[in-house]
Amino acid sequence: MRNIGMLVSYDGTAYSGYQTQPGRDTIQGRIEEAIHMLTKEHATVTASGRTDAGVHALGQVVNFATESSIPIERWCAAMNSRLPDDIVIWDAWEAPKSFHARFSAKRKTYRYSILAERTRDVFRRNVEFHHPAPLDIEAMRQALQHFVGEHDFTSVASPKSPKLTNMRTIYEARLEHELNVNHEPGRGRIHVLVTGNGFLYNMVRIIAGTLIWVGEGKFSPDDIVPILTAKNRESAGPTAVPHGLTLWRVEYDGDDRMDQVVPVLTEEKKDLA
Amino acid sequence: MRNIGMLVSYDGTAYSGYQTQPGRDTIQGRIEEAIHMLTKEHATVTASGRTDAGVHALGQVVNFATESSIPIERWCAAMNSRLPDDIVIWDAWEAPKSFHARFSAKRKTYRYSILAERTRDVFRRNVEFHHPAPLDIEAMRQALQHFVGEHDFTSVASPKSPKLTNMRTIYEARLEHELNVNHEPGRGRIHVLVTGNGFLYNMVRIIAGTLIWVGEGKFSPDDIVPILTAKNRESAGPTAVPHGLTLWRVEYDGDDRMDQVVPVLTEEKKDLA
Repeated sequence: MRNIGMLVSYDGTAYSGYQTQPGRDTIQGRIEEAIHMLTKEHATVTASGRTDAGVHALGQVVNFATESSIPIERWCAAMNSRLPDDIVIWDAWEAPKSFHARFSAKRKTYRYSILAERTRDVFRRNVEFHHPAPLDIEAMRQALQHFVGEHDFTSVASPKSPKLTNMRTIYEARLEHELNVNHEPGRGRIHVLVTGNGFLYNMVRIIAGTLIWVGEGKFSPDDIVPILTAKNRESAGPTAVPHGLTLWRVEYDGDDRMDQVVPVLTEEKKDLA
Repeated sequence: MRNIGMLVSYDGTAYSGYQTQPGRDTIQGRIEEAIHMLTKEHATVTASGRTDAGVHALGQVVNFATESSIPIERWCAAMNSRLPDDIVIWDAWEAPKSFHARFSAKRKTYRYSILAERTRDVFRRNVEFHHPAPLDIEAMRQALQHFVGEHDFTSVASPKSPKLTNMRTIYEARLEHELNVNHEPGRGRIHVLVTGNGFLYNMVRIIAGTLIWVGEGKFSPDDIVPILTAKNRESAGPTAVPHGLTLWRVEYDGDDRMDQVVPVLTEEKKDLA
């Protein structure tokens, strides 16, 4: 039995989230369908994490078991021609038997994007939250740092999150600000990137919603510490809308596929010839 | 009677083009519907040019007559709250009686975007043509310059284009190349920008299709001159798919709204704070 790993991007707009649900169109369902077309097998595809309806992925990682003898270098193109246009496989590789997309993951990064402009951007409307009023971006940046470290994140998790412990570690967090042309304060596009060892249900969206309240002056950056120590969901801000959220990258011991294949198309680097 | 001008962006993916057609969902139909909600009037909205199904606009300009007394500074927000998320008004202004979005236009710029990467970009799939093989970008750049100037553009117009004359002037044309991270030759993203005094039906898409054939080595840059002088559609390359095309900007005498309001969000300039 082979264990195949794949690096996947998707625009989650049209889907009821990652995980298969009866009667719903899901990312997992579409990937399993493509594998079935290719191999006639009914594989179960495990992801590093299940994304909700409307949430996107740049570098989702999945794995599945197969008896198929299709050579590894042919998987990517074969899958892509059987997947809809809003799901794509960047890379496929033979993973060790012990590799599990979720349990083997060491670090996960999510990005939450906010457009703080009067006018929405029609071309990015499904991948960012439109906030028409300006935001205090420096206060948001300060507030964000208070989430870094090992904490009980109960205050920024959905109460529906059924975990044995709400302790998690955020290794790093940063706020990127794309200024608008007129360099107007509080305007432009804001990306909040959070890297941790794991995330509770809705955790990044509640952190984003709380930061938006900081940006609106409803909280100060210093309110974050008492919000976390309260261990009470009601102390934090709202859950930001799903479509601003993207699972950005997943890192494994000694293996970061993102670095190898994806940055070509991300907005991280752009050189003009 | 007031004459109101508006600067409009739209993602054309979901629409049967700009122009109203019975039983079809169109950009014009949606804008006229929003004006009707606002004023109860049945306005006819004239655009600088009618874009086809699947074609987008960053800086489309339209105008319409109204008896409404709604102050000009309230039009934009009032319209945007009545338009779907994939159509947005950037600016509205009181235009002179003589202003006509089509007849008064002096220069129009279209952009055609091509992704020359093995793997499609799920987030831009509706706004660029995916060309999995590499392209000879330098040859395309050279070929593009042969279209500049005053020419009979019959060879790069749909034969269905019913015009008195096929003479048009292309003032400038440029190819922008976003290199991929590994700086692989022939790879990355290509934008073809063409500015002229007017365009025949399908003209930019046929220029793009012809350039793609140059990039594939099916034509050389020097073939462009005989293609144009043939004045025969069959001499040129194919009509590139509509979804790679965006009406980029429209300029009027002494008035370029794009410079005032849109660049905030375009990819033209990006400063990180």
